[in-house]
Amino acid sequence: MEEEIVLGKEISQAVIRRMPRYYRYLGDLLDEGVERISSNELSEKMKVTASQIRQDLNNFGGFGQQGYGYNVQYLYDEIGRILGLQQQHNIIVIGAGNLGQALANYSKFEKLGFVIIGLFDVNPMLRGHSLRGIPIMMLEELESFAAAHKIDIAALTMPKHSADSVANRLVGLGIRAIWNFAHVDLDLMDKNVVVENVHLSDSLMQLSYNMLRSQEES
Amino acid sequence: MEEEIVLGKEISQAVIRRMPRYYRYLGDLLDEGVERISSNELSEKMKVTASQIRQDLNNFGGFGQQGYGYNVQYLYDEIGRILGLQQQHNIIVIGAGNLGQALANYSKFEKLGFVIIGLFDVNPMLRGHSLRGIPIMMLEELESFAAAHKIDIAALTMPKHSADSVANRLVGLGIRAIWNFAHVDLDLMDKNVVVENVHLSDSLMQLSYNMLRSQEES
Repeated sequence: MEEEIVLGKEISQAVIRRMPRYYRYLGDLLDEGVERISSNELSEKMKVTASQIRQDLNNFGGFGQQGYGYNVQYLYDEIGRILGLQQQHNIIVIGAGNLGQALANYSKFEKLGFVIIGLFDVNPMLRGHSLRGIPIMMLEELESFAAAHKIDIAALTMPKHSADSVANRLVGLGIRAIWNFAHVDLDLMDKNVVVENVHLSDSLMQLSYNMLRSQEES
Repeated sequence: MEEEIVLGKEISQAVIRRMPRYYRYLGDLLDEGVERISSNELSEKMKVTASQIRQDLNNFGGFGQQGYGYNVQYLYDEIGRILGLQQQHNIIVIGAGNLGQALANYSKFEKLGFVIIGLFDVNPMLRGHSLRGIPIMMLEELESFAAAHKIDIAALTMPKHSADSVANRLVGLGIRAIWNFAHVDLDLMDKNVVVENVHLSDSLMQLSYNMLRSQEES
């Protein structure tokens, strides 16, 4: 018998940040036909200690039996359930420039249940176009689209100056989650909306810092 | 007299991750013409506690005088120096699809000293094209381009299956930093190369987790 998941406990964001990575590796193992894996083997593959893996998974109740390792399919499914991946998430993308189009072109997201159902832009040249069957609409069509479709997540890829006003408009339409690529921290009127930021310039600056430190050490 | 920076001390990656955000906010303050700011005002703007700000900046020696607040320009310049932004970083982008083109089109990176000097792809349709004056070259031209130009960072935006081989080829050409957008953790032969990952699917999964928890709480 595998153990049951203990929910309701507060789990640190550091642990949560590692969960998608476990999910990714377990998915690769499934693709390779691997049925069971020990925490030592998983540790070697993922370049984290076996003790870290056991600790992380113990937050959710364990999943492994001493000496038998982990059942890959079971662990994959359970982590997917923890991450909320058992349900489909509909996404709209605001901004159909290069980045918005790049997101719409990633078919990989769909395998995880994240389905982009529409792109919106203010550029009239894009009116009537579509990408992989996903329609590009004008921003003024947002309200009528939202009335007709369930939207779980809005990805913002438009310029920073209009990010706050568009984000608050989306929240007003009932959207509870924002995937923010605009180069700004959103100032939302509703503080319960979930925001995940992808700040590319911050990521470049962190790379720069680590380069400098690595040069100093060598 | 402002205090001197204490270098050589090991600073946690959690602190480092917050530095680009300080830099971004201080840049905005400069644009608004603000010369001095107290840690309380900065705290309110950035939605972190004033004590967190003081602690973070104390890692680098402080920068503030009790009762006088921070000199915005000085703090901006010093954080820039800590992040290694006083020098220009030349970037090449491998993969000139939507995401590669989106990166090349962000003029914002240049203001931070990150200059994209070339894009590479395997698609012969892109041969001879350019974006904002940045040439798109074929991947087989990589070696000759690297011989003629200083390259500090390579951004990888191509598919996961070729990421490892291209990354190791770049490292072989002397490139010491990789900004990885491929949906895979790179397996590099040289472990001293600095890698910064932008795993978009991990970010979506974390968003999904936080949505689920937020629904449970409400």
